[in-house]
Amino acid sequence: MSGQQPPIRPDAADSPWRTLAAREAYRNPWLSVTEYQVLRPDGAPGLYGVVDPGDNVTIVPLDDEQQIWVVEDFLYTIQRWGWFLPTGAINPGEDPLLAAQRELLEETGLRAARWDPLCACYLSPGISTQRSYLYLARGLTEGDPQRDPTEARMTTRRMPLAEARAASRLSETASAVTALGLTLAWEAIQAEVE
Amino acid sequence: MSGQQPPIRPDAADSPWRTLAAREAYRNPWLSVTEYQVLRPDGAPGLYGVVDPGDNVTIVPLDDEQQIWVVEDFLYTIQRWGWFLPTGAINPGEDPLLAAQRELLEETGLRAARWDPLCACYLSPGISTQRSYLYLARGLTEGDPQRDPTEARMTTRRMPLAEARAASRLSETASAVTALGLTLAWEAIQAEVE
Repeated sequence: MSGQQPPIRPDAADSPWRTLAAREAYRNPWLSVTEYQVLRPDGAPGLYGVVDPGDNVTIVPLDDEQQIWVVEDFLYTIQRWGWFLPTGAINPGEDPLLAAQRELLEETGLRAARWDPLCACYLSPGISTQRSYLYLARGLTEGDPQRDPTEARMTTRRMPLAEARAASRLSETASAVTALGLTLAWEAIQAEVE
Repeated sequence: MSGQQPPIRPDAADSPWRTLAAREAYRNPWLSVTEYQVLRPDGAPGLYGVVDPGDNVTIVPLDDEQQIWVVEDFLYTIQRWGWFLPTGAINPGEDPLLAAQRELLEETGLRAARWDPLCACYLSPGISTQRSYLYLARGLTEGDPQRDPTEARMTTRRMPLAEARAASRLSETASAVTALGLTLAWEAIQAEVE
């Protein structure tokens, strides 16, 4: 699974780091880790392991009754059930908006008539290249989910936006991007009302 | 760096996944990747690579003039300069609050008289175990930073909370946890005023 030599990506012109060598340290179908030999900003030799899961999308599906649709699933990483905004990987070359529409349909069966971008933000930029594109999806129509086999136990839940926003910060499985997405959606709605 | 056999962590009693084997796929001083052989929720065999960088802390340092202190540094992962809330790893066994006090001092030279927890949230729970503990730090006293060698080029910046909150979502290097932290701090301040 590893040992291939990826090309050394060029250092940005304004980078205080210098990259000397690169090796693919790990790869599975969902993420890779590249280990770079570097000269650090203080000039000393070091290494930097960069995790690359690719970018993803996060959708805030809000219906006409101000209810949010979230997905509930078991998170293998943290060995807990939790609820989250629908999210999923952007396929190579795929437009983020099309990825968001596809993922919303796959995970929840929902289609949305109106899509508004909320933010594009890095999730853990100290270690990972991953960026999430957040969208507010409105004008919802229900249909059947088309879930991945890994999502066989996923279900959807509907709850008031205000309640979801408050709960998203207090939950034992709170996720930064879910909490941020619900807050940005809340603020967007408030701004439209005012 | 790899090939050690970590113990199979026990599956949670309510997990729809079954773990069959585990191997350490990658490790550096800052993170590890464990690859698990699993039976997925649909019963089919598969694998799951779990990234474990350890938990971290994120601090919102707010001074008496409603100015936020942020750090500016080059992000090797995304090859860009950006500004962020001070953040850093929790040492093994370290209390999150003590880690936050230590990291704030190291990165900015600031000490804070008042600490309020804002949220504890997972940063990328589809692939990583990492959780960040967010704190609002007030009653600031300035001093000298004690930065790591990798942070040799880090500087601090001071800006109004309202401006930082808006800018954190629009920046080309927007970070979910920085945007969330600034918003939670903003809401906490508003709630105290009302």
